Amino acid sequence: MKSYTEHLWFNTRKRRELVNITPKVEELVRKSGVKEGLCLVNAMHITASVFINDDESGLHDDFEKWLEGLAPHEPISQYMHNRTGEDNADGHLKRTIMGREVVVAITKGRLDFGPWERIFYGEFDGRRRKRVLVKIIGE
Amino acid sequence: MKSYTEHLWFNTRKRRELVNITPKVEELVRKSGVKEGLCLVNAMHITASVFINDDESGLHDDFEKWLEGLAPHEPISQYMHNRTGEDNADGHLKRTIMGREVVVAITKGRLDFGPWERIFYGEFDGRRRKRVLVKIIGE
Amino acid sequence: MKSYTEHLWFNTRKRRELVNITPKVEELVRKSGVKEGLCLVNAMHITASVFINDDESGLHDDFEKWLEGLAPHEPISQYMHNRTGEDNADGHLKRTIMGREVVVAITKGRLDFGPWERIFYGEFDGRRRKRVLVKIIGE
Repeated sequence: MKSYTEHLWFNTRKRRELVNITPKVEELVRKSGVKEGLCLVNAMHITASVFINDDESGLHDDFEKWLEGLAPHEPISQYMHNRTGEDNADGHLKRTIMGREVVVAITKGRLDFGPWERIFYGEFDGRRRKRVLVKIIGE
Repeated sequence: MKSYTEHLWFNTRKRRELVNITPKVEELVRKSGVKEGLCLVNAMHITASVFINDDESGLHDDFEKWLEGLAPHEPISQYMHNRTGEDNADGHLKRTIMGREVVVAITKGRLDFGPWERIFYGEFDGRRRKRVLVKIIGE
Repeated sequence: MKSYTEHLWFNTRKRRELVNITPKVEELVRKSGVKEGLCLVNAMHITASVFINDDESGLHDDFEKWLEGLAPHEPISQYMHNRTGEDNADGHLKRTIMGREVVVAITKGRLDFGPWERIFYGEFDGRRRKRVLVKIIGE
């Protein structure tokens, strides 16, 4: 069994951003040499997400509006977590909706994807350095 | 390490449907010959879901009503994504709540399930051919 | 390829509780002898969750209030599932938001975690014995 581990670093300009990381993950799959296996991609921070959906800007606007409706940033005093001095409780909740991780099949040396599947890093408390882990196992 | 890959095809009659795919996945686990390992089952389309819950029709009605409350289909003009000519933005959001994938342990050649765990295909923009991927790795 | 399987048992005092199970999972990773691989941790019951987030009590209070807002326990008659004699339909929905499982990378014999990542058992219909499955594969 082969295994391959790499970290991707992010430092978004805005508090919330969605970043298409599919090309980076595909490159790591090639580097790993794994032909058949699994690729785990997960946020290493608990106010960020890794998820799979469409690379369509209108949909990304919909996600932003929808998540703000389900877990609003303000007023920050509505969250107990923010009494610790943080203002990112909503980021913990938004990331919970979007998910921490994806597991993707590797078949014949490539991510085994449907036609519109793309991997995104979802940042909900950005403007600082944060990491994503890519772990590939297989043969 | 063994690996096994198969696609399941769906073409639901209604826009939204939940389909119990547990027997199909169990059959693929048997075919794979894997005794100890992991089984990934994921939607390959971004308005569909694979999730694990109870095979109880009342609960499925509850899921339908609840998801419509959290991400209503209409008015379709409320979503930026639908300005591309689509009417399925709500399906992207509903699938996000329900999840893209499940990873299930295989122990002694079988899905290692609790008493009520069943795998479902969740369709949120149906009436056309769509796929689920089953990837099994182990020994 | 090595594999290792263990079940963790829970019997919470309250209907809803969040339990930090990170030390137990770390111990099982050590026992497994796996240095590079994947660790699946999943609820085996469909009104419980396994998820990763912060071990901060204010945030846990926020989760409780937020989930009650998204899927209220009462009135129990609002859910079709509860006509079967159950009163836990909300638990099925809450667990759907929080997720059934996590997959964690194992690197150099340890859970490959960011600084604040902790694994929790999320109970949404407790006061009875329920299980979590830990499945480790790798080398």
